[in-house]
Amino acid sequence: MTLDVVTLLNEIAEIGRDPVRGGYSRHVYEPAELELREWFRRTSTGLGLEVETDRNGNIWAHWGRGDGAIAIGSHLDSVPGGGAYDGPLGVASSLAAVAALMEEGFVPARPVTIAAFGEEEGSRFGIACLGSKLMTGALPAATVAALTDDAGVTYAEACLADGIDPAGLGRDDERMASLAAFVELHVEQGIGLADLDAPVAVASSILAHGRWKLVFSGEGNHAGATRMRDRRDPVAAMAAAVLAAQRIASAHDGADSARATIGRLTPIPGGTNVIASRVDAWLDVRGDTDPQTRALLEEILKASHASAEEHGCTLEVVEESYVSTVHFDPDLQQRLVGALGGVPVLATGAGHDAGILAAEIPTAMLFTRNPTGVSHSPYETATDEDCRVGARALTEVVRLLTSEPRK
Amino acid sequence: MTLDVVTLLNEIAEIGRDPVRGGYSRHVYEPAELELREWFRRTSTGLGLEVETDRNGNIWAHWGRGDGAIAIGSHLDSVPGGGAYDGPLGVASSLAAVAALMEEGFVPARPVTIAAFGEEEGSRFGIACLGSKLMTGALPAATVAALTDDAGVTYAEACLADGIDPAGLGRDDERMASLAAFVELHVEQGIGLADLDAPVAVASSILAHGRWKLVFSGEGNHAGATRMRDRRDPVAAMAAAVLAAQRIASAHDGADSARATIGRLTPIPGGTNVIASRVDAWLDVRGDTDPQTRALLEEILKASHASAEEHGCTLEVVEESYVSTVHFDPDLQQRLVGALGGVPVLATGAGHDAGILAAEIPTAMLFTRNPTGVSHSPYETATDEDCRVGARALTEVVRLLTSEPRK
Repeated sequence: MTLDVVTLLNEIAEIGRDPVRGGYSRHVYEPAELELREWFRRTSTGLGLEVETDRNGNIWAHWGRGDGAIAIGSHLDSVPGGGAYDGPLGVASSLAAVAALMEEGFVPARPVTIAAFGEEEGSRFGIACLGSKLMTGALPAATVAALTDDAGVTYAEACLADGIDPAGLGRDDERMASLAAFVELHVEQGIGLADLDAPVAVASSILAHGRWKLVFSGEGNHAGATRMRDRRDPVAAMAAAVLAAQRIASAHDGADSARATIGRLTPIPGGTNVIASRVDAWLDVRGDTDPQTRALLEEILKASHASAEEHGCTLEVVEESYVSTVHFDPDLQQRLVGALGGVPVLATGAGHDAGILAAEIPTAMLFTRNPTGVSHSPYETATDEDCRVGARALTEVVRLLTSEPRK
Repeated sequence: MTLDVVTLLNEIAEIGRDPVRGGYSRHVYEPAELELREWFRRTSTGLGLEVETDRNGNIWAHWGRGDGAIAIGSHLDSVPGGGAYDGPLGVASSLAAVAALMEEGFVPARPVTIAAFGEEEGSRFGIACLGSKLMTGALPAATVAALTDDAGVTYAEACLADGIDPAGLGRDDERMASLAAFVELHVEQGIGLADLDAPVAVASSILAHGRWKLVFSGEGNHAGATRMRDRRDPVAAMAAAVLAAQRIASAHDGADSARATIGRLTPIPGGTNVIASRVDAWLDVRGDTDPQTRALLEEILKASHASAEEHGCTLEVVEESYVSTVHFDPDLQQRLVGALGGVPVLATGAGHDAGILAAEIPTAMLFTRNPTGVSHSPYETATDEDCRVGARALTEVVRLLTSEPRK
C-alpha cells in the first residue's frame, strides 16, 4: 500500500478547525485531538502496524516488536489557531515512510515504531511536551496529573477521555530501554531553509527555553471615578514589562539568538469600565545557552519589577517550565546529513519532543521547508512537493538506521 | 413594616459571588441577576408595592399609580468581580425609604416608584445603561437586540430569561410621560466624601464618557523560532498604547478631570509560545466636557496609531458608546441640598442610569460615602452606619418630592 503524505494531511484537513482564530485548535484529549488519535490508529492498523497507547497517553504504531527499535513520529495537537503542519506533518511523513519501505519489500533489521506524543504544545495544560516528559520522567507524574486547564479540569481527569488511567502515569523504563534512537520530522518554524533555497535540513540544536508566569497585582477600581494619580493599574505595569522584554531581547538577538514573547495575558476582572486588580501574563524566553537565557530572563524580570514598582503594583514570578539547550547527537546528525546528500544543518528556537528524548537516547530531527517561516498560525505552510521530499528523506533515514541489525 | 438597608443587603450577600475574581459577578439575565430580580420582586410585594416588569427588562415597584410619579432606585447587576454596593445599595435604600415612610403613616401626594434597571454596567453586552437607554430611546431597540455576549448569545435571546419579549424593546413613551423626576442613590465611586468627612452628597454632574474598541493586527508566529527583528507583534503595539493612554490622561487630570483606562484586552490566539496575530483592547475615556473628552481621545489614538506603525501592525478603532457630560437639574439639586441640611455637592466620573434619564426629566443623585473610594472591585465598601444615613437621606428626599400634589 502506498501512502502519500499530502493525501494523509488532506484526510484530516477538516478536523479541529477553529472558526474564530482560523487554522486549527486541536488540544489534547479534546474532541478534535481524539478524532486525530482515532485517525492515526485506523491508518496504522490499515498499514498492518500494531497499535498501542502507552500509559502516558502517547500512541505507538509498531512495525515489528522488540528492543533496539528506531522511533519516528511527532504529535497531533496544535496551539490555539495553529497551522496544518506543526505536528501532523511528522506523523503523516512517518506513515508515508513506513508504507514506502513496506511497498518496496524492505525488511528492517530492527523494529520501527511511529510515535504520536500527547500535549506537545502545552496549549491545554500550560506545559509543553507532557507526553515525552512523562515517559522520560522529566516531569513527575503527580505534577502532571494535578495540572488544570482553563476550565479547571485536571490532566488526571482529562486523560480518561482516551482511556488513560492516571494511576499509570510516569517514567516508562521498559519503553525507554527498547528505543535505540528517535528521529522527528517537523515543518521548519523559521525561514532558514527558504533563505538557503533547500527543502530539507537536519537539526543541530534547540534553543534553551522557559516559560514564566508573571502576576502583576494592583488595585481594582472604577475606570471613571478614580483619578489617574490614585491608580495602581497592573495593566500599565504589564505594558511596560512587555515593551522591556521586546527591547531587551531585540538587543541580544543577532549573532546569538535571544527571544522573549508575551502572547498570552489575562487582566482580572477584565471589564471595560474597571481598572484591573491583577494581570496574569506568560513570558516565553529562549537563548542559545542556559547562561545566556538566564541572563536574558534576569534582565527582563529586573525591568518588570521596576515597572511594577513604578505603577504601585507588585510582581510575582513563577517558573512554569525550563528546558536547557539541546544539542542533538552529533554522530547521528552526521550520518543523516550524509545519507541525505549533504543537506543543511540548522538550529531551531522551537521546542520538540525530540528535545526531551535527546537527554536519554540518540535523537535527531529533520525539517521540511516553510516558505514564509510562519508557524503557530493559520498561515503556516509547506508546499506539497516539499512535504513529499521530506517524507522521502525520512524514508531514507529509516532505511539507514534499520539496515544495521540490533545489538 | 420596617426595612433596614443593611439587613436587605445581607439578604443578597451570597447571591452571585465570584469564586475566581472575588466579590460578585451578577450579569444581566444570568442566574445570579435573575435571583436578585426575584428578591426585589418578592421584597416589594411584601411591602405592598405593585410590581411590574416593563418591556425593556426594567422592574418597577409602585407605591400608588398614575402620572407625576417620583422614581427612585438603581440597578442590581455588577461588573465582573464587583462590590456589594454598586447598584444594590440604591435599590435597598429605596425599599428602606418607602418602608420608613409607610411605617410612619406618611401619605405621598404623588405616586412613588422604585426602579431596578437592567444591564447598567454593560458587563454582559458591552454597553452600559441598556435598560434606561432602551426606555428613553437613547439606543435603538434593533441595535440592542443584536448585541452579543462573549458566548455569542444576543440580547434578544438573553432577555427571554426574564420573560421579556424582544419584539417589545424600545422607547416607552407612556412610562416616560408618567415620571416627574428620578433620584438615584449610589455608593460613591471616589473618595470625595471621605476627603470631606461627610456621609452623603448630592451629585452635580457626570463626566463625558465613551468606550472604544481598539483592534491591533500583526502577524501570528512562533515565539521561539521567529527572530525579534522579523516580528510584527500586536501585543507590543498594544502595550505602547496602554502606556500612552495613561501618560496622556495623567497629564490632563488635575484641575480638569481626564481619565483613560484599558482594563479589558484579549490577545488572539493567546498561546504562551505564540506571537499573537491580533489584540482586542477596550479603551474607556472620560473628561469634563465633550470637547475635552474628544481631544483626549484623539491624542491617545494618535499615539496608538504611531505605536501600531512602529511595531509593523495596523490599528482599527470602533466607537462602541459615547455619552455627553450630564449636568443634573440645578433646581432639583438645590432643593435636595436644602432638604438634607446643606450636604456637599460632588461631580462623578462614573456613568449611571440617572445620567440617561437626565436628558428627559429632572434627575438627581445621592452618594453614600465610600471610605477608600474603591469601586468595581471586591474591596468596594461602605459602613453600615453610612448606609443607614444614606437611606434616611433618600427618605427625606422622597418626602420632599411627594409632599407637593401632582400637577
